[in-house]
Amino acid sequence: MKPFIRTLWWENGSLYIIDQQKLPSREISLKLTSVRDVVNAIKALKVRGAPAIGCAAAFGVAISALKSRTSDPCKLRDAVLKDIKMIASSRPTAYNLFYSLGRMSNALEEALPGGTEKIREKLLSEALDIFREDLDCCRRIGVNGASLIRNGMNILTHCNAGALATSGFGTALAPLFAAKKKGLRFHVYVDETRPVLQGARLTAWELGKAGIAHTLICDNMSGSLMKQGKVDMVITGADRIAANGDTANKIGTYPLAVLAHYHGIPFYVAAPYSTFDPAIKSGKDIVIEERDPEEVRKCSGKMASPAGTRVYNPAFDITPAKLIRSFITENGIIKKA
Amino acid sequence: MKPFIRTLWWENGSLYIIDQQKLPSREISLKLTSVRDVVNAIKALKVRGAPAIGCAAAFGVAISALKSRTSDPCKLRDAVLKDIKMIASSRPTAYNLFYSLGRMSNALEEALPGGTEKIREKLLSEALDIFREDLDCCRRIGVNGASLIRNGMNILTHCNAGALATSGFGTALAPLFAAKKKGLRFHVYVDETRPVLQGARLTAWELGKAGIAHTLICDNMSGSLMKQGKVDMVITGADRIAANGDTANKIGTYPLAVLAHYHGIPFYVAAPYSTFDPAIKSGKDIVIEERDPEEVRKCSGKMASPAGTRVYNPAFDITPAKLIRSFITENGIIKKA
Repeated sequence: MKPFIRTLWWENGSLYIIDQQKLPSREISLKLTSVRDVVNAIKALKVRGAPAIGCAAAFGVAISALKSRTSDPCKLRDAVLKDIKMIASSRPTAYNLFYSLGRMSNALEEALPGGTEKIREKLLSEALDIFREDLDCCRRIGVNGASLIRNGMNILTHCNAGALATSGFGTALAPLFAAKKKGLRFHVYVDETRPVLQGARLTAWELGKAGIAHTLICDNMSGSLMKQGKVDMVITGADRIAANGDTANKIGTYPLAVLAHYHGIPFYVAAPYSTFDPAIKSGKDIVIEERDPEEVRKCSGKMASPAGTRVYNPAFDITPAKLIRSFITENGIIKKA
Repeated sequence: MKPFIRTLWWENGSLYIIDQQKLPSREISLKLTSVRDVVNAIKALKVRGAPAIGCAAAFGVAISALKSRTSDPCKLRDAVLKDIKMIASSRPTAYNLFYSLGRMSNALEEALPGGTEKIREKLLSEALDIFREDLDCCRRIGVNGASLIRNGMNILTHCNAGALATSGFGTALAPLFAAKKKGLRFHVYVDETRPVLQGARLTAWELGKAGIAHTLICDNMSGSLMKQGKVDMVITGADRIAANGDTANKIGTYPLAVLAHYHGIPFYVAAPYSTFDPAIKSGKDIVIEERDPEEVRKCSGKMASPAGTRVYNPAFDITPAKLIRSFITENGIIKKA
C-alpha cells in the first residue's frame, strides 16, 4: 500500500512539501532549500501535524549540514546545533518535533569523529529513517485501528490527523483508510476545526480522494449528533501525550472527549510512540501554543469581528487520560489500566 | 434606559431594520415596504433572533393590511391571513414568530366587525404593542439576570441574544448591560458561533458599544476555558422552550450545557415568556431548521472545503431542561423544581 497523498518528500537533494495553506483549492508543492524555509513553513502551517512537523524538522537538520561548506567537524556541529535550536523554536507543543531533533542531535554526535562528510551523510540518512519509520508507524496504526471499525459505523474526527499530518496515511485517518481498503462501509463526520479549518480544508479533501463517505460539520454540531445517536466512535490524533496519558491535541478535542464521555461513546487517540513524551508527567506540564489573534478574528482570510476585538487563540487543549478509551499505536491498541 | 442599538423600528408608516448580515463592517438600515421584504429579511438573517423575528413578523402583518386597498373587510382578512401563512413559513424554530402571528390573527378577528380601517389601525397598534412589550421584557430580564452577576466574574455566551436579537437590550445580553449600568466589573467570553458568526460579528460589536470587556473565542475553545476555571457562568438565549423546559437555541448551545454540567458551572437560559411554547411537550417535538450547506462550506463567504462536500447544517440544537440551572425571564428567575 503506497501513500496516495505526498505530504513531504526528499528528491534530488531537496525537501519538497505540499503547501497545506493552499489546499484544497490549489495543490502546490514548495521546495524548501534552507533551514529558514523549513522553520517558516512550520510556523505558517504550510506543513503541520505533529508527525509531519517531526519529519520536516529532521530534513531541516539535514539541510543545515548539507548547505554548510565548512570542512571543520566542530564548526559544522556548532552550525547544525544552532539550527536545531532555531527549528526547535518553531512551534512548542508537538512532541514529535523534539523527538526528531533529539534523534538528529544524537546522530550528529555519533558521526562527529568521522568528519564532515560522515556527518552530512549520517544526518540525511537519519532524516530519511525518521520519515520511513513514520510512514511505517502510520501503516501499522491503520491496520490496528481498522480492527475497531464495523460496517455501518459513524465515526467523528477533528482537525486533520491524516496523510497530510504525517509522512503518509495519517494517524486518526489511517484506520479509516485501512478499513476502506478492507471493503468496510462506514461514514465519517468531519469537524471543520476552527480557526484554521484543517478539517474542512484537509480532512474533507483526503477522505474525498480516498472515496470515503463523509459529512462536514461545524465544531459546535457534534454534541447534537451524539445526542441523536449518530456517532459511534470518535478518533483524533495527538500532538503530545504525557506519561500519564493526558493528551494535547488540536483545540476542540477536549470538549469532544467530554461529550463522548457524557453520551457513552468511545473516544480513541491514534498516535505513534514518537508522540509520547515520557519526560512530561501530566497534561498540566504541556506548553500550549497561543497563535495570532487574526486567525480567530478572520474566517477564511476575511475579517468577521470588529477590528481589534480581543481574542484568545490556544492552538491545543489537554484531554485527560480518563476520558480516552484507548490509544491506537503502531504496536497495538493500548487499553487503559 | 433607552436602547443604545436600534434593531428594528416603525417610522413614518414604514418598517426599518438594521441589516445584520452587513454588521459589523457596515451599519446599514433597510426599509421593508412589503410582506415579501419582511419574509426575505427573516430568511436571509438580515433580522434574526427569536424576539426580533417575532416583532418583524408582527409589523409584516401590519404592512399586509396597510398596503391592501380593499374596502371589503372579508377580502382584507383573507389577504392578511394568506400573508400570515407566508410569514409563518419563513423560519420554523423560533416560537416568538408563531406567538406574534397568533396575536396578530386574534387582533384581526377582533377588529373585523369594525371594518377595514379598524383592522388596519388595530393590526398596527398590536404590532407596536408586541414591539414595546418585548422591549419591556428585555429590560426586566436584564434587571432580573443582573442579580446573578458578581464583580470579577467571567461569563460565557453563545450566538447573539443581544439587542440585535430583540427589539432592544436583548435576552442573554440584557443582564450584562444591566450589570454594567450598576457599575459591576466582569468579563465576557464570546463564542464566535459558526457558521453565521453571530457571536463574532454581532455580540462582540454590541459588547464593544456598551464598553463591556470581552474576549472572542472559537466555539471549540470554551471547554478548555472551563477546565482552566475561567468560566463562572454561561448565559444563552432561546428560540423555543418546550413545556418541560427543554430548550431549542443556536447550534452549539447543547454542547456548552454538557460542558458546563461536567465542570459544575451554572448554565442559564434568558428568554421572555413569548419564547415558551406550552403546546410542545418536550424538545423531541421541536422542529429544527436545516440551512443552506454553503453556510458551512464557506467561511465569511469564502469557500473553505472542497466544492460539493456534503454538509449537515442544523441551525439549532435542543438542551434538555435538566442541564439548565434556571430560566431568566421578565417575571423573575424560574428555578427548576
